[in-house]
Amino acid sequence: MEKRKITIIGAGMMGSALAFPAAENGHEVHIVGTCLDDEIIDGYLKTGKHEKFCRPFPENVSFHYFKEWEQVVEGSDFVIGGVSSFGVDWFLEEILTRLDPKIPVLSVTKGLRATDDGSLLSYPGYWMSELAKRGIVRDICAIGGPCTSYELVFMDPTEVGFCGKDNEALRMMKQAMQRPYYHISLTNDVIGLESAVALKNAYAMAVTLAVGLNIRWHGEEEPQHYNSQAGTFTQAVRETHALMLMQGGEFESECIGLGDLYVTIFSGRTRRCGVLMGKGLNYDQVTEALAGITLESLVITRIMGNAIRRKAELGLVDLRDFPLLMHIVDILDHGKSDSDIPWEAFTFEHLK
Amino acid sequence: MEKRKITIIGAGMMGSALAFPAAENGHEVHIVGTCLDDEIIDGYLKTGKHEKFCRPFPENVSFHYFKEWEQVVEGSDFVIGGVSSFGVDWFLEEILTRLDPKIPVLSVTKGLRATDDGSLLSYPGYWMSELAKRGIVRDICAIGGPCTSYELVFMDPTEVGFCGKDNEALRMMKQAMQRPYYHISLTNDVIGLESAVALKNAYAMAVTLAVGLNIRWHGEEEPQHYNSQAGTFTQAVRETHALMLMQGGEFESECIGLGDLYVTIFSGRTRRCGVLMGKGLNYDQVTEALAGITLESLVITRIMGNAIRRKAELGLVDLRDFPLLMHIVDILDHGKSDSDIPWEAFTFEHLK
Repeated sequence: MEKRKITIIGAGMMGSALAFPAAENGHEVHIVGTCLDDEIIDGYLKTGKHEKFCRPFPENVSFHYFKEWEQVVEGSDFVIGGVSSFGVDWFLEEILTRLDPKIPVLSVTKGLRATDDGSLLSYPGYWMSELAKRGIVRDICAIGGPCTSYELVFMDPTEVGFCGKDNEALRMMKQAMQRPYYHISLTNDVIGLESAVALKNAYAMAVTLAVGLNIRWHGEEEPQHYNSQAGTFTQAVRETHALMLMQGGEFESECIGLGDLYVTIFSGRTRRCGVLMGKGLNYDQVTEALAGITLESLVITRIMGNAIRRKAELGLVDLRDFPLLMHIVDILDHGKSDSDIPWEAFTFEHLK
Repeated sequence: MEKRKITIIGAGMMGSALAFPAAENGHEVHIVGTCLDDEIIDGYLKTGKHEKFCRPFPENVSFHYFKEWEQVVEGSDFVIGGVSSFGVDWFLEEILTRLDPKIPVLSVTKGLRATDDGSLLSYPGYWMSELAKRGIVRDICAIGGPCTSYELVFMDPTEVGFCGKDNEALRMMKQAMQRPYYHISLTNDVIGLESAVALKNAYAMAVTLAVGLNIRWHGEEEPQHYNSQAGTFTQAVRETHALMLMQGGEFESECIGLGDLYVTIFSGRTRRCGVLMGKGLNYDQVTEALAGITLESLVITRIMGNAIRRKAELGLVDLRDFPLLMHIVDILDHGKSDSDIPWEAFTFEHLK
């Protein structure tokens, strides 16, 4: 395999985890922190490890503070963008406007950006249109799919998609990154894949809301019940499909999004949010309980909710097609205190 | 609400559980055991309870041995068929050929019946065609969706679909059965709903295979890893879609089937089968380990596998579209000893 130089910008868990498959393939890998990551880089330089990962970084990964990024990135075969959704504009201003447009970028940031008419843009789409306004023409590729960082590092077998418009760059990045535990599909359906893996945040909260409601009604010791989780899951599949049709995404991407929904239900912060909401906490109480943790899912859900409402005002969608999303948004943003799920709104009568 | 007489034939867990919503709506409910259920009926008569249910039957449920079925069923507004998939022909011969065709039937038996050309019939479709050969014309409705019996009894909120061609009967049965915890959609898409909820058996084994593989590689104490489960889930969504297209089912039914997949992954015998296969047991060892337990999922998976192979021989499908199903079938029926998942077969390149 041709040896590549790969620079990861952003030392969060996901960006850092991607150093493993890259380095294991023998490439020269650099992790550069953002302006907020100096402490993380301190730790990496000191220990060679992320505290939440089960093993240290391979030896051919090196670590750099943000101030060094322009020297480090020089000569890279591609850059992996590993900022959080709160860093999207920072990444645009500080990195993308300055980076040689010939160096391909693969972004792992999940989310969507809304416009005034309720359209939901992918981050690659948003970045490319902003760059175009400044006369910079480049493609930006992205990763989507069910992949938690610590399990990737653990080498639990993982399937993801890389999306973009530049087939040659996609194939080069796949070849550089694929491992016996990291399996990569390639697609041009950027808006579809990026939409599917953003939407799952809202629906993972919705399914885990059923977990929280169970605890609220039956106590912390009650074993989990799955009929109610499966009922919300069914509705999540239905609404995801409607949203994907709205976004013009392909079914292949929808499948990856549903796998991502599955993994998100069982791990991390989004699950905690949903469970807390089910237990009866409102937005302020949830954010307080999760103090210090990045609430990307809440932000993405709010953006989606506002966009769908705007589309409904414009007569482009019917809110009755999204009762589960609207229920979550009403709890989060409109202080709806009853988190019980609107089950009957999910039923239908399809009779001729 | 109009008071109904409802007779449930089959005293297994699912048939018995449906007595709860029916009886709570004030109807006169009779559970009649099959010829194999005499001991269960003994227990019900003695204790008024199923040992695996959290509460006793309501007072307006009565219990009967099979020999009494023809007297009991007389005057029923509808009959619920609660036999297992092994009782499909018994139900045809003993009940359906003798039952007044004016009494609607709602079946809760899950599965599919294959024909020589690899077509997969729903049980209602199979029964109706067999009855037609004997000059008996009747519609048979069915229940599909994510609903485990003990959680229904626990009143965990549950969403299901009733399917059939007789709209009036469907609406009557929905009105009789719906409860604040039991939510019912109605559809004419019998083949779609029945296919979706049968297919999930094979795919629930496939997803839980990833659980078993994890245990095999890392030991019983290892916490669950979800990337690999989500990767198989993604592929399950993809293959379910292809199978539903083949069956001519509607997307609404597919959504219910995916909810049913979700609930099946987390409960009961199908999960145990998948985990054991992942741990390296072959078909004989799995059936031995589960001795005494009805292995409906294994049977349904085998039927599906054979049908798909037959369709492939006839040039009607491409086996490469079903690598996950074929992997499960190869372990079960062809003694494939390596249960590791064919991850690369799930990847795709959709580039223009």
